[in-house]
Amino acid sequence: MAPAAKTSPEIETGGGVWRFPAGQPLRLDSGASLSPLEVAYKTYGHLNADKSNAVLVCHALTGDQHLASQHPVTGKPGWWDRVVGPSLALDPDRYFVICANVVGGCMGTTGPASIDPGTGEAYGLAFPVITIADMVRAQAMLVEALGIDTLFAVIGGSMGGMQVVQWAADYPEKLFSAVAIATAARHSAQNIAFHEVGRQAVMADPNWRGGAYLKAGVRPEKGLAVARMAAHITYVSEAALHRKFGRELQRDGLSWGFDADFQVESYLRHQGASFVDRFDANSYLYITRAMDYFDLAGPHGGVLANAFIKARKVKFCVLSFTSDWLYPTVENRAIVRALNAAGCRASFADIVSDKGHDAFLLDEPVFDQALRGFLAAQAQARGLS
Amino acid sequence: MAPAAKTSPEIETGGGVWRFPAGQPLRLDSGASLSPLEVAYKTYGHLNADKSNAVLVCHALTGDQHLASQHPVTGKPGWWDRVVGPSLALDPDRYFVICANVVGGCMGTTGPASIDPGTGEAYGLAFPVITIADMVRAQAMLVEALGIDTLFAVIGGSMGGMQVVQWAADYPEKLFSAVAIATAARHSAQNIAFHEVGRQAVMADPNWRGGAYLKAGVRPEKGLAVARMAAHITYVSEAALHRKFGRELQRDGLSWGFDADFQVESYLRHQGASFVDRFDANSYLYITRAMDYFDLAGPHGGVLANAFIKARKVKFCVLSFTSDWLYPTVENRAIVRALNAAGCRASFADIVSDKGHDAFLLDEPVFDQALRGFLAAQAQARGLS
Repeated sequence: MAPAAKTSPEIETGGGVWRFPAGQPLRLDSGASLSPLEVAYKTYGHLNADKSNAVLVCHALTGDQHLASQHPVTGKPGWWDRVVGPSLALDPDRYFVICANVVGGCMGTTGPASIDPGTGEAYGLAFPVITIADMVRAQAMLVEALGIDTLFAVIGGSMGGMQVVQWAADYPEKLFSAVAIATAARHSAQNIAFHEVGRQAVMADPNWRGGAYLKAGVRPEKGLAVARMAAHITYVSEAALHRKFGRELQRDGLSWGFDADFQVESYLRHQGASFVDRFDANSYLYITRAMDYFDLAGPHGGVLANAFIKARKVKFCVLSFTSDWLYPTVENRAIVRALNAAGCRASFADIVSDKGHDAFLLDEPVFDQALRGFLAAQAQARGLS
Repeated sequence: MAPAAKTSPEIETGGGVWRFPAGQPLRLDSGASLSPLEVAYKTYGHLNADKSNAVLVCHALTGDQHLASQHPVTGKPGWWDRVVGPSLALDPDRYFVICANVVGGCMGTTGPASIDPGTGEAYGLAFPVITIADMVRAQAMLVEALGIDTLFAVIGGSMGGMQVVQWAADYPEKLFSAVAIATAARHSAQNIAFHEVGRQAVMADPNWRGGAYLKAGVRPEKGLAVARMAAHITYVSEAALHRKFGRELQRDGLSWGFDADFQVESYLRHQGASFVDRFDANSYLYITRAMDYFDLAGPHGGVLANAFIKARKVKFCVLSFTSDWLYPTVENRAIVRALNAAGCRASFADIVSDKGHDAFLLDEPVFDQALRGFLAAQAQARGLS
């Protein structure tokens, strides 16, 4: 295996914030429109002469556009710098990699913390409820604005994978290939239940102030931290938690109190505390809502295959992880079956891993190989050097 | 199958609150003592002449002594009136059934909402941290106070099952048989993680007031409701949630807001809201802590079998459910293996059910039959008519 690229100056990055004029609002599934629309994005590498090497990466719920470069708030390396970098699956020498913050997000794209032009104050709950299709529509506007007709690939894990299948349903003519990872074509009752716990935790925080906390100069940090802690448990497998922490204590002996006695408690508290520094609570509400509303079959007569009828020319790859209990193999396989039923070509690998849902973000060499292999084959088919 | 008994006058109930004198404190694992100690309990049926028909049922985290009679707060039927009643597995005509509220609880047994004799106010966080062994020690004091030398059976599910195996380790000479259901001999990292989320949700509520909310005349209802919601997801299987709710909506169409759109959201909110009416937030902290501290092998050199060395005369039954992901089959089987390694006789059934952890509280006829069959065989061996 090639060594994982560290965030470093050799990965040339571009991007910025694309401001769409008032005459180009984002039409939303709810019937509302969002204007002005700003989309914050990062790019790595260069668009080639025939504009055939663009790859759009779609980020997950709490991800953002800082794919393979230092995060401006946390200072941490990019969340996928194991995948994007020299000699990696998405090598900027070969591909023009784009990643945009989703609509409703809090890293520069228009979201509930943005200024509502109607009031001059942050939207808060006046921000319209958005959907996965809305996120994809904004991405399509950005891709068009960047002068790209066809994406070599659209790739994403978790909520990113939902965007990938939505792209395939809504813009199949703009895709050469599509890679959906650790995802689902709809949110299950259990998925919705966990998100609802998180939302209730945020809303239970008196600092949430009915969503108008920015105006009040406060933030519902405790509620958002609890939401993150609950969600984080679903991102890892029981086996991974056991291997990493077991019942190991923080100190010698029990505290006989409510301090973090167990290492897993301390770890979870850290996950919660560090999350609130970089994420907006209302964005968490809106994006979880978009995921809960997601049911790709719904607008296609309840038949998932119908969503992919026009995507027969797109080369698909679906990757799941055996220990993912958030979007388990069966949900990923349902996408593959629907693709096959629609007459689409789909590679599928259920990767043996005990790391759980987050395996696509972690050191999982078989996953790297599968992704790299699929992309290399498609690059050859596409004639990319 | 016999029809499930409804709570009704024909089940004769007794019980009350047993007040232990100051000279009989509860010695705690922490080194502290609790005095005075009060234990609230319910009984059903009559102790026979040779005192051989007493059954102790141990309740789960949020359960209480109101096993088969109307709950004084909620007015609901007893939580196990499918098991305790005429012609049921625990028929009061045959057995003298006892159920006591655990130490640390909030239904009459001494807990954090009780008056601290040192201050004249509710204990709050001055209440000592307790363990599963402490709960069992208090139960053993009650059983002795009731004049019972040997229990025909000790039975419990979930945290009740933890008490059952603790009884077998600490008081094997007082047991004829023991039934542990849907439980574990120790709390896993994931178990601890979910409990920590719940505790953080309670503590994040400003009305918690560092545990002194009773004095302030408030209650951390929102935080406790979030804790209950998160925990409730772990009590049911994904399949059960899907079958019961799927993605069914509350109304025609989406609200495009943060109301409960999906039935599963409404259900969870109801679980949270109704829980806070009957449960004390500090009790929730203390009892979850006791469960997290639970590791029966720990004090026995880390070898679970050693805990059961003196229990060879006890007849064991362990029952698990195939869809229980809170205390999965593998954890229950670990108890059976340890029992076997210690030379104990143990029946074990992994009951096929898609209802999840809470199956032992729900309509699951195969479970009823397994429990009934084991108890009937032991009753015959014990010479109970």
